[in-house]
Amino acid sequence: MRLAELSRRSGVTVPTIKYYLREGLLPPGELSSPNHASYTEHHLRRLRLVRALIELAHVPVASVKVVLEAFDSETMSLHERIGAVHRAVTPHREVTAGDEARVPPTEQVRELIERRGWAVEPDAPAIATLVETITALRALGQDHLADHLDAYAQAVEQFAALELAAVTTHTDPDQIAESVVIGTVLGERLIAALRLLAHESMSARLLGPASGR
Amino acid sequence: MRLAELSRRSGVTVPTIKYYLREGLLPPGELSSPNHASYTEHHLRRLRLVRALIELAHVPVASVKVVLEAFDSETMSLHERIGAVHRAVTPHREVTAGDEARVPPTEQVRELIERRGWAVEPDAPAIATLVETITALRALGQDHLADHLDAYAQAVEQFAALELAAVTTHTDPDQIAESVVIGTVLGERLIAALRLLAHESMSARLLGPASGR
Repeated sequence: MRLAELSRRSGVTVPTIKYYLREGLLPPGELSSPNHASYTEHHLRRLRLVRALIELAHVPVASVKVVLEAFDSETMSLHERIGAVHRAVTPHREVTAGDEARVPPTEQVRELIERRGWAVEPDAPAIATLVETITALRALGQDHLADHLDAYAQAVEQFAALELAAVTTHTDPDQIAESVVIGTVLGERLIAALRLLAHESMSARLLGPASGR
Repeated sequence: MRLAELSRRSGVTVPTIKYYLREGLLPPGELSSPNHASYTEHHLRRLRLVRALIELAHVPVASVKVVLEAFDSETMSLHERIGAVHRAVTPHREVTAGDEARVPPTEQVRELIERRGWAVEPDAPAIATLVETITALRALGQDHLADHLDAYAQAVEQFAALELAAVTTHTDPDQIAESVVIGTVLGERLIAALRLLAHESMSARLLGPASGR
């Protein structure tokens, strides 16, 4: 297909596609004449992945290139390649907790992972986020949330199973990676929004005008 | 207690407490002599709530004042007063979806809320976030996540019940509100981090070196 069609089908403007081509985020098209390059379904899938990384997950252009290089490595399994994409869209988040937070409860997280039988790398950024979040909760005197770690973990396993099943209906690695980016970012927002609504509803029941509190 | 003790027990520095006093986020202490003000447990609880709003939930100081005024209203139920705090820490998040997203699936969300029997205000910011997120998922061709809305909703009800039970072990409204702020912000991070670890683990099983993909 021509550049105009690639633009129409991907929803990415022609100048932006040209920019991605210059930056090496998209492989060049095949020259069908000195002035015309031709693009394939592979370009379209790659473009959708690039778009999800940049527009949705806000990964900087320079990092997208590094991520795609890792993703295109032939020596890694699909899990490892998707892992590179997954980590790019889930930066480690610092949690400020106040000064009391000194001893991170790494042990608690390690034991949780062991109990659940989760196969995760010890340097996964989400582990650090989890440790800092629990530390912050304790420092702020809200230990009760951290006490329910297993209940949370069990519930997220239900999500994660559904999500991974959906992602692996794709066979093309670029499409799988795009699904992972979108699902990670938007799925998180979906869950957060539903949780807030559930809170509001339960608060209305327990503490609303009819509750007498 | 004196200002120095209030500072020590709250973990907030004296200059910051003085700033909060000037801004009206904290009621003035009782003057025990022309140069000495005395503070109570109520000041301490209020200070902890202010700190959670500002340092953890990043609510601007000007908004904190508005939120506290609503929270201190005697004419509202505890649910309504906590609702004011809850909304302050859960701003409506805009979800950029690309241009294809035109018709928001408000109907789908309305039906979900009805099916779950949730008592939520029609203008809850989380409803708008939910509608936009589903719109974005559809526009990006990832409808499958939105297809599992009921499964997500059921799982978050489990969280939310545990969380609200923990929050309502407190009896002081300021402490309840502080728990709501901390639990909303940090609980979301806890769930997000666990979800990422569950994904990584399932991906390792299904797509890792031993999977042949």
